[in-house]
Amino acid sequence: MKTAYSRAGVKAADEMPGLKALLKRLKPTFDYAPGARPAIDFGYYANVIPVGPNLGVAISTDGVGTKILVAEALRKFDTIGIDCVAMNVNDVICVGATPVSMVDYIAVQTPDDHLLEQLGIGFAEGARQASISISGGELAQIPEMIRGESEGAGFDLVGTCIGTVPLDRVLTGREIKPGDAIVGLRSSGIHSNGFTLARKVLKDMGQYVPEFRSSAGEELLKPTLIYVRFATALLSSGVDVKAFAHITSDGFLNLSRAEAEVTFELVQLPEPDAVFRVIQERGRIAAEDMFLIFNMGIGFVAVVAEADTSRTIEIAANAGYEARTIGVVTGEPGKRVYLRQHGLVGEAGRFRPV
Amino acid sequence: MKTAYSRAGVKAADEMPGLKALLKRLKPTFDYAPGARPAIDFGYYANVIPVGPNLGVAISTDGVGTKILVAEALRKFDTIGIDCVAMNVNDVICVGATPVSMVDYIAVQTPDDHLLEQLGIGFAEGARQASISISGGELAQIPEMIRGESEGAGFDLVGTCIGTVPLDRVLTGREIKPGDAIVGLRSSGIHSNGFTLARKVLKDMGQYVPEFRSSAGEELLKPTLIYVRFATALLSSGVDVKAFAHITSDGFLNLSRAEAEVTFELVQLPEPDAVFRVIQERGRIAAEDMFLIFNMGIGFVAVVAEADTSRTIEIAANAGYEARTIGVVTGEPGKRVYLRQHGLVGEAGRFRPV
Repeated sequence: MKTAYSRAGVKAADEMPGLKALLKRLKPTFDYAPGARPAIDFGYYANVIPVGPNLGVAISTDGVGTKILVAEALRKFDTIGIDCVAMNVNDVICVGATPVSMVDYIAVQTPDDHLLEQLGIGFAEGARQASISISGGELAQIPEMIRGESEGAGFDLVGTCIGTVPLDRVLTGREIKPGDAIVGLRSSGIHSNGFTLARKVLKDMGQYVPEFRSSAGEELLKPTLIYVRFATALLSSGVDVKAFAHITSDGFLNLSRAEAEVTFELVQLPEPDAVFRVIQERGRIAAEDMFLIFNMGIGFVAVVAEADTSRTIEIAANAGYEARTIGVVTGEPGKRVYLRQHGLVGEAGRFRPV
Repeated sequence: MKTAYSRAGVKAADEMPGLKALLKRLKPTFDYAPGARPAIDFGYYANVIPVGPNLGVAISTDGVGTKILVAEALRKFDTIGIDCVAMNVNDVICVGATPVSMVDYIAVQTPDDHLLEQLGIGFAEGARQASISISGGELAQIPEMIRGESEGAGFDLVGTCIGTVPLDRVLTGREIKPGDAIVGLRSSGIHSNGFTLARKVLKDMGQYVPEFRSSAGEELLKPTLIYVRFATALLSSGVDVKAFAHITSDGFLNLSRAEAEVTFELVQLPEPDAVFRVIQERGRIAAEDMFLIFNMGIGFVAVVAEADTSRTIEIAANAGYEARTIGVVTGEPGKRVYLRQHGLVGEAGRFRPV
């Protein structure tokens, strides 16, 4: 059901021997570039490559997945480039880096003029929101390898973003301590994850859904929020930032990517927006699956020292994001993620009743 | 007929208003990252992002295109990762950078275990040859967006490579002067370009071709040569390197990407290998098309001061590459590329009889 398995997914690696074998083949390459050993293992949001004295380049790559099929169904292509930027920059900021540039890969069946210009509009808007350049790209015309909603009009979008970070300030969640606060920033909907399921449940993208006050497709196509302004403001504010988490596939389980042997108690999650409620009800989907597949209203998380909580929320508000404390870190080992309001606990790649 | 239109292609941009419109939308983003304006315009092999005092990060992205369909036809997946690395690192070295790391994007219909491990073998071997790490990646399972030779087994491969280069040593061909020598390094076959045409002409990938002493597919699937060892050795040798050119789509016309207002006289090209002769004869393809679509035996070019010619060839030989002088730079403006042995001249995106 999942759209994309990040290299990070604990579950993905466990359930896919091929992914495990792939990573085993790639790991020895960490020693192939003299003096430039990647600073982080596979499975975090981005890696960091040392390039100078106390200077690392963060790098991450991601596609948009089947959100593209919704854009195709609606023939609306001017925001999907924002999603492509968002999925990449939101990963790069998680290691404490400032994003600087992105390259894109556009694979098409046919290089339709209107499509390409509209994609450019979204890319540029995403770049503006993230304060990055789009410094290059590749347009591949591979009709025999791509397909979409209608024959000849299929395409795929992939980005790779780089950022800079002092090597002594790379964030991997190692400094998270019991008592730290978990601050969540609202999402703008389902962002770019869970589309295979969302499309299956909602079926007709053109149909008006009263709860959305729009068509299903218009709701699903809302651009992914870009959290760069928040992350950069927080990092330069003096707040003791312990970790960031981009809530994508695997939802809040992403918190357990952090290095520290702690547990995350989420006790004040917001009421999920209409899009999540409608998908859950119409699809009769269990809460444990909803929380694994969707962001459920929180797109980005900051773990900060408890004393910095209100300052963090204030910085988010000043940068234009709605933020709230959603939980607290405890000393229980195991990197579990409790969703107390829902009676769920997440570990080993899934949520289950406590 | 072309597999991939690089952002660079003069022809591509002229013939595709959509590409032109896309680039027009993206160009303003060059000013969006404070202090990190990309150093090179669209259309070169890679861009360079300033990240520190006299330190730039080169970045380039590329896919493997329909060479993947040959791998699928032969069910041989252990070298196509080499091609993915090669297409990216060979671009990054063209700006004078030392490649350090790559991330990959693998889109599949089905995450087949054998496929993923075999892809890993190729990626790792490419990384070894290029002295880079594969520091991360994304595995996207998007069966409705991908297809291939047989239903359910389609995939796409994309890489993004970064390298480092002192900002005062970024190569863009600005220093090329009349009289400079053009040294060409042999390719290992058609590399990763021209596959749409090659597959159309040779049809049955399993058929034995006497001239190849192998099946058509085995010949076409030969891994793209990686020219990193040559480029890094030459750059550190004291040789006055004026420009590098990765000979991909648009063939030797890639030389005209260089900044200098000169012309390239290619007068000593090698006899094309069997693969090019067979494709040309069986497909009854005009020489002007062959030279535009295929590398015709030279995969990488260095432009050096005339006095450095023999030293350049020696460095190539020591690094394991077969090199020869293939031409000379003249002061004629217009960035034309003459193929004197073939009575052709290339400009404005195509070759024609002189």
